[in-house]
Amino acid sequence: MKDLRLLHTSDWHLGITSWNGTKPVDRRNELKKALDRIIEEAEKKDVDLFLITGDLIHNRSNPGFLAIHDVTEYLKKMVKIAPVVVLLGNHDWRGLKALGNLISSLSSDLVFLSSYEPVDVVAKRGQKVRLLPFPYPEESDYLEAKVLKGKSLDSYLETRLAKLREVGKEEFAVFLGHFTIEGLEPYTSNELGREITIKRTLLPSFSDYIALGHLHSFRIVQEQPLTIYPGSLIRLDFGEEKDEKGAVFVTVRKGGEPICNRIDTQPLPLKTLFFKTLDTLARKEIREFCEDFPGYVRIVYEEDPLKLAHELLSTVENVVKVEKKAERILQTDTSEIREEISKLDYFELFKEYVKNEHKGGEDIIRILDDLLEEVKKDET
Amino acid sequence: MKDLRLLHTSDWHLGITSWNGTKPVDRRNELKKALDRIIEEAEKKDVDLFLITGDLIHNRSNPGFLAIHDVTEYLKKMVKIAPVVVLLGNHDWRGLKALGNLISSLSSDLVFLSSYEPVDVVAKRGQKVRLLPFPYPEESDYLEAKVLKGKSLDSYLETRLAKLREVGKEEFAVFLGHFTIEGLEPYTSNELGREITIKRTLLPSFSDYIALGHLHSFRIVQEQPLTIYPGSLIRLDFGEEKDEKGAVFVTVRKGGEPICNRIDTQPLPLKTLFFKTLDTLARKEIREFCEDFPGYVRIVYEEDPLKLAHELLSTVENVVKVEKKAERILQTDTSEIREEISKLDYFELFKEYVKNEHKGGEDIIRILDDLLEEVKKDET
Repeated sequence: MKDLRLLHTSDWHLGITSWNGTKPVDRRNELKKALDRIIEEAEKKDVDLFLITGDLIHNRSNPGFLAIHDVTEYLKKMVKIAPVVVLLGNHDWRGLKALGNLISSLSSDLVFLSSYEPVDVVAKRGQKVRLLPFPYPEESDYLEAKVLKGKSLDSYLETRLAKLREVGKEEFAVFLGHFTIEGLEPYTSNELGREITIKRTLLPSFSDYIALGHLHSFRIVQEQPLTIYPGSLIRLDFGEEKDEKGAVFVTVRKGGEPICNRIDTQPLPLKTLFFKTLDTLARKEIREFCEDFPGYVRIVYEEDPLKLAHELLSTVENVVKVEKKAERILQTDTSEIREEISKLDYFELFKEYVKNEHKGGEDIIRILDDLLEEVKKDET
Repeated sequence: MKDLRLLHTSDWHLGITSWNGTKPVDRRNELKKALDRIIEEAEKKDVDLFLITGDLIHNRSNPGFLAIHDVTEYLKKMVKIAPVVVLLGNHDWRGLKALGNLISSLSSDLVFLSSYEPVDVVAKRGQKVRLLPFPYPEESDYLEAKVLKGKSLDSYLETRLAKLREVGKEEFAVFLGHFTIEGLEPYTSNELGREITIKRTLLPSFSDYIALGHLHSFRIVQEQPLTIYPGSLIRLDFGEEKDEKGAVFVTVRKGGEPICNRIDTQPLPLKTLFFKTLDTLARKEIREFCEDFPGYVRIVYEEDPLKLAHELLSTVENVVKVEKKAERILQTDTSEIREEISKLDYFELFKEYVKNEHKGGEDIIRILDDLLEEVKKDET
């Protein structure tokens, strides 16, 4: 039986402008260079199937024309090399789903996965591949889980996963997901929408490869079955300063371990410079560092005796962020609150809010509960 | 040789909200009903090829998700019946061109025409059809004509048409255009962008059918070759009150005249009520009329002694516009100005503006002329 050569890439975020609050930088050229490099490697390596695990476009509600132009151009280039599978993520523009449905109905060479139903595709050299998709859930999925089935979102998603685990396989089986694996939450950057966290034991163990998206840093989650986040193509923010960036090339062999190679997209470096006191010497150091540095720079300081910190933004080209170091205690508090919140669903969050903000909030909560109860009855 | 059964529809304007200034009405349901009717007829009549001549989406710069969803859904339904050809218009969202390029590269059953190059397609029963496309020109076409080739836009477009007239034909030849035929300017509604007007003698006379879009009212332009504007699907504004609306079903027969039948989309009626004086009696008449009227109503009056004209908008559901009759002289002036403007191109318009608004404008005009001259030299 033939082996299966996969190229897995994710989290392109086309159309992103970084550091909007301080110095907006359009990342288009950097992203295009990274994608050109991936296309080049795919041609060299004679890929059988492309896997793209979500967040192709950064702006969910209103992407610019150039983002749409670029996403279509690169998909076109990939389809010329081999069939392409696209799973949608939390960032992805809703229009992409509509267009994906149209495209999937026209061609079997570009498949958009937007539901939890398994899809069979034929890779370049005729290999039969069963795709097990786990896209980012839509708002309607929450409502379905909560109101119609009286389930928590977690148990709803677990049921979905259980169904995928029961699916038989073709020659090959590839699971594609857009979520955070439990235990990797600290590596999730600030994202749109609710965080979805999945236990790795729930992933279908018969998969030949598990392709994940959402986390921006490259990470081999486990070897058995091989489970990888390729991460984003460029360093999108300073939390990703130390990340290597790129795609992965995976060869799945029957009767042997899969082989995995990284494709480095060689993005611009990011660098945070820390200063206790932003004095004249520090400012000189910054200027000298920035002169030779090809990427973008963030300055973090504790004291600013000259009151000139923000002037660095306008006078040094690659300084894109200047911030006073936040107190440690504040940071801890935020993460604790976030943990608290992540356990609640939308209705529970609303109830918490009402409880804290409104006198007589109990009445509102009772009305909400009655309404939910009624809807549930109506639908069953 | 087999005959060729064409279904030609145009100017859908999906996503349009009418009467934004006075009472916004989302026309989605009406448009969907019209499109459902067309799909139904296409199935009954066993169509060989769909022709769509532009303005599928109303909002050029930022269409809503539902407009994109609907356009993809209806294209999907059509492709299930027969191959579909889409020519882009002046309203169409630029993203549609990018997506069209991707889709055309994936499937020969849904062809987007966005350049002036002839394209050969195979219709449902294997008939070979050469398409001669004349889409609405982009801004870059103006610049190319003016700056690089030193031509007026008109002569640039005439050259394009001359090239299409020289193309040989396949079994069948169909010309598709999105513009106004000279002599029909009064039937052009207020539209986005510059008006393109083409002499009918410039159309390729060997065409078996000439499918036009842009005008919103149904119109058989000429019989030889058969040239038709099917018009929009619904009555988009009060200028279209008396229009029949729908699509056309054309059977092209070798060795015989083509046969043309209209498909009526039966849209809601629009009605303008005129009143010299908007007195109590007139207001009563309006209410009585509106009660039984299934469509939308505009009130035009000369005098409003009760000062209650605009109250009709909030108290009568289907009154969507209330306006005082404009003076005749004002209307004439506007159309004269428009005629004046339509003879100028962008650079000339800018020069006119500078001449009238700025003292010392001659300097600016001279600089502009020098720059244009320089660019021309650079490129040749």
